[in-house]
Amino acid sequence: MAAAAGVSITTVSDALNGKGRLPDATRRHVREVADRLGYRPSAAARTLRTGKSGLIGLTVTTYGDEPFTFTEFAYFAEMARAATSAALARGYALVILPATSRHDVWSNVALDGTVVIDPSDQDPVVSELVRQGLPVVSDGRPAGTLPVTAWVDNDHEAAVLDILDHLADAGARRIGLLTGTSTDTYTHLSTTAYLRWCERVGQDPVYESYPAHDPCAGAVAADRLLARPDRPDAVYGLFDPNGTDLLAAARRYGLRVPEDLLLVCCSESTVYANTEPPITTLSLKPRRIGTAVVQLLIDAIEGLESDRPVEQVIPTELIVRTSSQRRPPRTTVSPPRAPEAG
Amino acid sequence: MAAAAGVSITTVSDALNGKGRLPDATRRHVREVADRLGYRPSAAARTLRTGKSGLIGLTVTTYGDEPFTFTEFAYFAEMARAATSAALARGYALVILPATSRHDVWSNVALDGTVVIDPSDQDPVVSELVRQGLPVVSDGRPAGTLPVTAWVDNDHEAAVLDILDHLADAGARRIGLLTGTSTDTYTHLSTTAYLRWCERVGQDPVYESYPAHDPCAGAVAADRLLARPDRPDAVYGLFDPNGTDLLAAARRYGLRVPEDLLLVCCSESTVYANTEPPITTLSLKPRRIGTAVVQLLIDAIEGLESDRPVEQVIPTELIVRTSSQRRPPRTTVSPPRAPEAG
Repeated sequence: MAAAAGVSITTVSDALNGKGRLPDATRRHVREVADRLGYRPSAAARTLRTGKSGLIGLTVTTYGDEPFTFTEFAYFAEMARAATSAALARGYALVILPATSRHDVWSNVALDGTVVIDPSDQDPVVSELVRQGLPVVSDGRPAGTLPVTAWVDNDHEAAVLDILDHLADAGARRIGLLTGTSTDTYTHLSTTAYLRWCERVGQDPVYESYPAHDPCAGAVAADRLLARPDRPDAVYGLFDPNGTDLLAAARRYGLRVPEDLLLVCCSESTVYANTEPPITTLSLKPRRIGTAVVQLLIDAIEGLESDRPVEQVIPTELIVRTSSQRRPPRTTVSPPRAPEAG
Repeated sequence: MAAAAGVSITTVSDALNGKGRLPDATRRHVREVADRLGYRPSAAARTLRTGKSGLIGLTVTTYGDEPFTFTEFAYFAEMARAATSAALARGYALVILPATSRHDVWSNVALDGTVVIDPSDQDPVVSELVRQGLPVVSDGRPAGTLPVTAWVDNDHEAAVLDILDHLADAGARRIGLLTGTSTDTYTHLSTTAYLRWCERVGQDPVYESYPAHDPCAGAVAADRLLARPDRPDAVYGLFDPNGTDLLAAARRYGLRVPEDLLLVCCSESTVYANTEPPITTLSLKPRRIGTAVVQLLIDAIEGLESDRPVEQVIPTELIVRTSSQRRPPRTTVSPPRAPEAG
């Protein structure tokens, strides 16, 4: 190959692997010669030489060994789709690993690195991967000392405070929260932001926690929240199905949305544009996150000097619909309002 | 383990692997003892014993070594999402393999079986996998003698004939086709159905073929089709972006849709509900297909006797929008029409 192209072996290798700083003409010339000779570097040889398999993992670990088909949730599905596209575009295969049998499958595939979604605070998967010297990029900033190569996240505290202010603006006097029992930072930061906000405005916290991966626990928690004697007049739900769960519970208790109960939930699902009434949702922009985590992971695997920051915060978007609007929009002329609570 | 639980080794194995016909109480007892002892069957041991890795592949092979980020297309994205969910729900990891570097990644992962989307007529990937004794389930019926374990597909001929009749009903007199140059059965059967229909009604075929994975070739082909002296007054496009491609081309030639040009394309994208005008689309129901192929593949891997047929035809759906309706709906009273062409 090198002799046919009249260049060094290193130049051939660099040209075919897209490495090094070669003039475009040289790279093109080597590739043309390679094509003419029908030369294709052997997969095994390449893997041995580079120590790379071309496979990257993606998994949700926070729910441990619980069965959890995470792609049923719009957030994870959109994130995984973007991650798959980003991986394929750079020539990597994406391995989407199940929560329950991951101890079997992990040992059967030589991953170059892994994306972990919502790691818990002492995540054993992350710790083990890092111990093996493999890059780990997390969707969700790691808690405490969990060692990851890079992370991408939203500013969950700011997003929750913004939603609570929005609900108070719309007239809510007792805002409830549907939250999770898991220890990932999304759940943790969102909940502490809520508790801090309650303290600031002098409202007693009214919330229910449930295991978010359980397909029916959200419906039960929503019902419990609206059955309380100190029933909230507005609720923010942290998880995708909470809008539907809360609407169903409201119906059972004869509560009208938004007249008696204001609702917001965090969801990427388009169904909330067409529920009765349409529900205000917080979007975490999973496509941008899925693309970013894979780019960071592949940069780390390939040892690329990149100008991408290894801690990235993606802006969220509050999509305001009927369920959280009790008053006319604030742009209309209206007398100044008294503080909502406290 | 067996001694501690007071049962046989086979019973322990069956209880922990969810196999055999054990009383629930026995299974529970063994699992409790296993938990107490911190026993977890080793992945390697299980793989050796069963010869299974828990990993299944998914890939698009028809475009060979061309770079093709197939998840950018709504069909593949939805199909892959459903396939991922079905795999995770049965405890399998799904490996989504890229077209271009698959020769590297295939050798680095021990797949139990593979889903191949749109295999070409002499697909070398399918042949090699089958030679290795691995189950292959294809999305798209295989051409000729390509040996697959099972397949799931739509009835593409019936779907195309239905669309052509629908366009003729709406007043089209010369229907054009945007099709692909690849040799998968989707492209092949759709094109021959079009040619047969043309012959039947006595219309000269008017079509352009292009490599469907090329991100700009569709726009060029759409432009070429509308630039022809024998310009069609209706077009069916086989691929997702064709609606947008044809709308843009129509605008360049001053053609109004649907007044001067009727349009239908095969797409799962929701954007066509909101284009100007909204475009009639054919849905191939990729979620049902993605679920079905994975169920069939895992049944084959596990050697399950299943009552699922190994050749499944999934119904398509024509979503009629403004772009293909030139006349009032057929339910209104109107004089009988003369034949459209020939």
